[in-house]
Amino acid sequence: MIFYQKVNEEKIVGENEGNYMIIASLSIAPLGKGTSVSTYVKTVIEILKKEHVTFQTNAMSTVIETKDLETLFEIVQKAHIAVVAAGAERIITEIKIDDRRDKQVTIGSKLESLK
Amino acid sequence: MIFYQKVNEEKIVGENEGNYMIIASLSIAPLGKGTSVSTYVKTVIEILKKEHVTFQTNAMSTVIETKDLETLFEIVQKAHIAVVAAGAERIITEIKIDDRRDKQVTIGSKLESLK
Amino acid sequence: MIFYQKVNEEKIVGENEGNYMIIASLSIAPLGKGTSVSTYVKTVIEILKKEHVTFQTNAMSTVIETKDLETLFEIVQKAHIAVVAAGAERIITEIKIDDRRDKQVTIGSKLESLK
Amino acid sequence: MIFYQKVNEEKIVGENEGNYMIIASLSIAPLGKGTSVSTYVKTVIEILKKEHVTFQTNAMSTVIETKDLETLFEIVQKAHIAVVAAGAERIITEIKIDDRRDKQVTIGSKLESLK
Repeated sequence: MIFYQKVNEEKIVGENEGNYMIIASLSIAPLGKGTSVSTYVKTVIEILKKEHVTFQTNAMSTVIETKDLETLFEIVQKAHIAVVAAGAERIITEIKIDDRRDKQVTIGSKLESLK
Repeated sequence: MIFYQKVNEEKIVGENEGNYMIIASLSIAPLGKGTSVSTYVKTVIEILKKEHVTFQTNAMSTVIETKDLETLFEIVQKAHIAVVAAGAERIITEIKIDDRRDKQVTIGSKLESLK
Repeated sequence: MIFYQKVNEEKIVGENEGNYMIIASLSIAPLGKGTSVSTYVKTVIEILKKEHVTFQTNAMSTVIETKDLETLFEIVQKAHIAVVAAGAERIITEIKIDDRRDKQVTIGSKLESLK
Repeated sequence: MIFYQKVNEEKIVGENEGNYMIIASLSIAPLGKGTSVSTYVKTVIEILKKEHVTFQTNAMSTVIETKDLETLFEIVQKAHIAVVAAGAERIITEIKIDDRRDKQVTIGSKLESLK
């Protein structure tokens, strides 16, 4: 389990007062670069670290938390372009967005609600 | 089958000379607005029409063709926000992007290659 | 647009009286077999034809209609195994199922509701 | 992070000698049951526990490891049916399968390769 920035509920709420967090899962993979694509996944993780976004990598995707849609798409685009720059000729990028407007939700609070 | 703008290979190639088309599937659905969500899907289709993007709706998603990632994310954001504006309190948006850099590909040419 | 078996509402309702149709989108692609994967997509389409299932191929996936979950998974497994048999060493299979229990829905009726 | 059964590489390899593990992400959600669906996610987790399958829940989906496709589909069907039984009238189930035949892979080894 890779969890680079620990979710600090109070800090996030404080920083985004009045805003709703966007939670999304992200998967970026090249077609035609062999069966092992971990080098490219690491490229994506490097971008997420540079962008100081809260994220969590699992065996099938990476869950990201951003303050709005603009930020999410900006970061996904940077990560996608980084995979192109790394030599991928066909890139399959998948994003699933969970945008909840009735309640402030974070990666941490979503996991907490399943206990 | 809804196919608002017929794919015109030559026109598209002409307009985006040197560029690569992005093909993506898009699904935007509200949680908590009953079991029927076609009103919201129609809202998304209205945005796609306004944006003059080539798209094709199937029973599970809508396939879009844009000239680059920026355009795709701009349109998806507009469609997502329109569903929020229509009253959805939790919105699940899914995007799957096929970005091919080794070959000019369109919705039409992809379908053609399966014949 | 590939639509092998025209949706015949009445016939389907008649054959599955009291049942609910499952509508699903399916994508099966090999990693590590080059950037062009249409040969493998054709392999999947061959299986769907043999199984006499109602399906519709779009530029990003194939929409299938089956009478129940068992049938869907049986067919997906056959298609997945056929791609393995065709030489793929890593296979990414994606299924999105729309199972509606409050209303009889088909590919045709879902598309009709968007008009 | 919910990780009910710790991945024990040696045990898994021992039990499935000569087999290839299937790694999949799973998401099952009802449409029309309000914006909060954690009760239904808990129903799915209960099934996975009963089935003694190795799984890991993240904020957007659950990653499962099974010994073959048959087992995966059997478990997904049980979980899906449990959500129907819990009262959901429209259920959206998403499965993404990573089936690697050139190498024995587990949830643990996939995460390890990203370090």
